[in-house]
Amino acid sequence: MAGGGDELKLLGMWASPFALRAKLALSFKGLSYEYVEEDLKNKSELLLSSNPVHKKVPVLIHNGKPVCESQVIVQYIDEAFPDAGVPLLPSDPYDRAVARFWAAYIDDKLLKSWLQASMCKTEQEKAAAMKETFAAVANLEAAFKECSKGKPFFGGDAVGYVDVTLGAVIGFVRVGEALHGMRLFDASRSPLLDAWLDRFAALDAAKAVLPDTGRLAEYAKMKQAEWAAAATN
Amino acid sequence: MAGGGDELKLLGMWASPFALRAKLALSFKGLSYEYVEEDLKNKSELLLSSNPVHKKVPVLIHNGKPVCESQVIVQYIDEAFPDAGVPLLPSDPYDRAVARFWAAYIDDKLLKSWLQASMCKTEQEKAAAMKETFAAVANLEAAFKECSKGKPFFGGDAVGYVDVTLGAVIGFVRVGEALHGMRLFDASRSPLLDAWLDRFAALDAAKAVLPDTGRLAEYAKMKQAEWAAAATN
Repeated sequence: MAGGGDELKLLGMWASPFALRAKLALSFKGLSYEYVEEDLKNKSELLLSSNPVHKKVPVLIHNGKPVCESQVIVQYIDEAFPDAGVPLLPSDPYDRAVARFWAAYIDDKLLKSWLQASMCKTEQEKAAAMKETFAAVANLEAAFKECSKGKPFFGGDAVGYVDVTLGAVIGFVRVGEALHGMRLFDASRSPLLDAWLDRFAALDAAKAVLPDTGRLAEYAKMKQAEWAAAATN
Repeated sequence: MAGGGDELKLLGMWASPFALRAKLALSFKGLSYEYVEEDLKNKSELLLSSNPVHKKVPVLIHNGKPVCESQVIVQYIDEAFPDAGVPLLPSDPYDRAVARFWAAYIDDKLLKSWLQASMCKTEQEKAAAMKETFAAVANLEAAFKECSKGKPFFGGDAVGYVDVTLGAVIGFVRVGEALHGMRLFDASRSPLLDAWLDRFAALDAAKAVLPDTGRLAEYAKMKQAEWAAAATN
């Protein structure tokens, strides 16, 4: 489907930011693919056999061979289709190392503490997790300045690996604002990321795959109710 | 120092498996470098300014530019010095994705649950963490079969990215055996990894940088005493 006899299939779940990373990468590279929506409460045989280790979405299946884990998938898409769309990873090894560092930071620090904040039982725990989250935002704000060198994206003039990695959480950033009035990025604390978010979300390739904020807000409310019920049991 | 006018400096700490990853990569690539031992209780200005985000070793400084995080460093060394020694990452994009998947798995699953086991307060918690650890070992045993394709290393005939990533913990595998009689890899549970460990550790490039097991055992005893004291305070 991707052209040249390549068959690409993506196993995802519409609300998953990790599956969205793969969708964003495929969209920015202009690659067509078959999308398979998974029911995570009743996973398909194809998902379980393609990702027997983690049993999670996303899985990208390229000519029958599965690739798992969102950051691995994005790098794979870039390397397996070097002539499609824009390159996502920089060509210079040092810039590539910097991009990998920040992509890892987004998962290991920003998303970890942010998810923790949304699952905390006490206000005190939540405040501590949000403090960590905003410290990570401050580091990412500095990273944007370093990576973009005054241009619109982490990748410079065009979207790159870090943009795709962070862009995948835009839906939940908007949900946080809609549901709790909590802006992860804002004009006073992180003006560069605040402007980047709108710029990224306005791109056709992003708009084509970003989930609807209203639907995502309903989903987030349902998940929070599930966590709250689990915490009191 | 690496030749061709390149200056390489590694900030490390002798017992750190993460710093050892960088040492192993440099050793297998045959690159010379200046090594700076850090006192982690009194970090140098160079470390703090080179890795302001995590303030951790290892940091590789190449011609004045810092690269942080062990897996990022190993990939950087391979990409910045493509003509030195053996290539660590496979040339095929799919094989590269598989290698990145397993390298991430070693940190996210194996080392996480293993470290947790060594820090648990109750025998019950420890048993649960060790069960997870051995589940990760079983997955890695299968990964070795998949990646090595009957050859001696994850990388095939020569050591590659996954070998270096896992090889960095060999010292602590030996310490676990010496101190607690606990074999992370053994002939009945994981015969392929058990044989791999001895094969890897016997290579000259590994022997040159692997820490002494006796010294590492003393260090591990001291750390465990520190954790125990912290847990009772």
